[in-house]
Amino acid sequence: MNIADRAQLALLYEVAGTPKPGNVDRARDHPNLRFEQFLAGAVGAGRALRAVPEPPLGKTFERAVAGMADAAGTNTQFGALLLLVPLCYASQREEGPATRVDARAVVDSTTVEDACSFYRAFEHASVAVDDPPEGMDDLDVRRGADAVPAVRDRGLTLAGLMEKSAGQDGVAREWTRGFERTFHAAGWILDAEGSAGDRAAGAFLRLLAGAEDTFITTTSGEAAASEATRRARAAVDGREDPSALAAEFVERGINPGTTADITAAALFVALERGLQP
Amino acid sequence: MNIADRAQLALLYEVAGTPKPGNVDRARDHPNLRFEQFLAGAVGAGRALRAVPEPPLGKTFERAVAGMADAAGTNTQFGALLLLVPLCYASQREEGPATRVDARAVVDSTTVEDACSFYRAFEHASVAVDDPPEGMDDLDVRRGADAVPAVRDRGLTLAGLMEKSAGQDGVAREWTRGFERTFHAAGWILDAEGSAGDRAAGAFLRLLAGAEDTFITTTSGEAAASEATRRARAAVDGREDPSALAAEFVERGINPGTTADITAAALFVALERGLQP
Repeated sequence: MNIADRAQLALLYEVAGTPKPGNVDRARDHPNLRFEQFLAGAVGAGRALRAVPEPPLGKTFERAVAGMADAAGTNTQFGALLLLVPLCYASQREEGPATRVDARAVVDSTTVEDACSFYRAFEHASVAVDDPPEGMDDLDVRRGADAVPAVRDRGLTLAGLMEKSAGQDGVAREWTRGFERTFHAAGWILDAEGSAGDRAAGAFLRLLAGAEDTFITTTSGEAAASEATRRARAAVDGREDPSALAAEFVERGINPGTTADITAAALFVALERGLQP
Repeated sequence: MNIADRAQLALLYEVAGTPKPGNVDRARDHPNLRFEQFLAGAVGAGRALRAVPEPPLGKTFERAVAGMADAAGTNTQFGALLLLVPLCYASQREEGPATRVDARAVVDSTTVEDACSFYRAFEHASVAVDDPPEGMDDLDVRRGADAVPAVRDRGLTLAGLMEKSAGQDGVAREWTRGFERTFHAAGWILDAEGSAGDRAAGAFLRLLAGAEDTFITTTSGEAAASEATRRARAAVDGREDPSALAAEFVERGINPGTTADITAAALFVALERGLQP
């Protein structure tokens, strides 16, 4: 398997893992988001990922999002791709799997043009996001390509943009902290037993137990994010049934999407280190 | 999505569809065959499929099987690929989706070298097959590459080989009959409602109700194949619960693998005609 294959398979294992409370998984759909749309999204993103490392990182991300949205008919894996794309670039070395140092180097090498492409990616998919931080209205991602002049004016690289968002977005935080949680979770996945899907579900629960999910904060509010993490911790400790929790969270629309994104990225790192199906 | 993307997505929708009595599906694993292995097999076959139409058909098939087996760690989709590969070649025309005429033309153009590659494919994956027809011991597929001299001696094309096997193998029969059941089932899939997986499961049941599955005959015997079709018909008519049937068939090791292969091929044809996730 090449790098793009591994990224696609990481997306597939992520959605296959069950129970992942609040997410679409092998056992559960959302009212307006089906399992099959995630399968299609993973396939649709493939062509862009296979072009790595030739195009600039931002272009690859934009094209991967466009391919995903075109195949899935909606946004399924925007955040997961935002983590997987730099990891694909980091995996270009000859010897051994990519390390956090490699990932940091990719982040540090991103440009203003990468940031512009990132904004353009929002034109292809409807992504739930918070209001921008204070003084950044001109950089609101919901402006899509309209924000490009402001990005250029400020000379903002994609890494710089992620730094500004790290306070409120768990995916951006991975960018700024050298994919700390991603690599940590990859270790759990490799050390666990069972199928790749079972390992994904276990890592997901531990990730959610370890930190509040910023996508829940954005879509359901701070109280829901705090509750989700508290109850994920209870599930990890065996005090809650994760399947019952999964049913309840889907019912209540509590969707730990950022935790799923990091799980997918962790699966990619684990696949590079020999994870079997 | 390009042709290879559609073939991969067809493999993914096939395994996602549930209930598909007796098969690995979104809700069921086999004791020694997991859902995740099918996901990996679909990804692993991709590189070979993307090379269509450059290499000869047989080479593409051999490489797709090798990629599948390498990623999945076992044989997951040998028969499905044997149907998908000629359909991928048939899809090379400029205008409109491939027709049965196109598929027949691809079959008719196969060569002795394609047949040799087909034999070599058996070196990459362990495939359950029957004894060869009378007078064909030297062509036993279990001989793998050792059978190549006999194939050359007889001047047997891949189409010719499929013709010899059509009496006992439902995949070979599709080759010789212009993919009749494949295109028929694609129509059901397009006319149905629900997710791609639901449509796949519905088509699978109708296919099984319509003809005995030759993979069941090979692995569980004629009586089991006949029972499976009789009970699938009952499920289609609403006289049996397909989910209960699925649990029972998995328990008893009754595996309609050929029907699943044709379902995957039908999904490819349907995807070319606009099937959405």
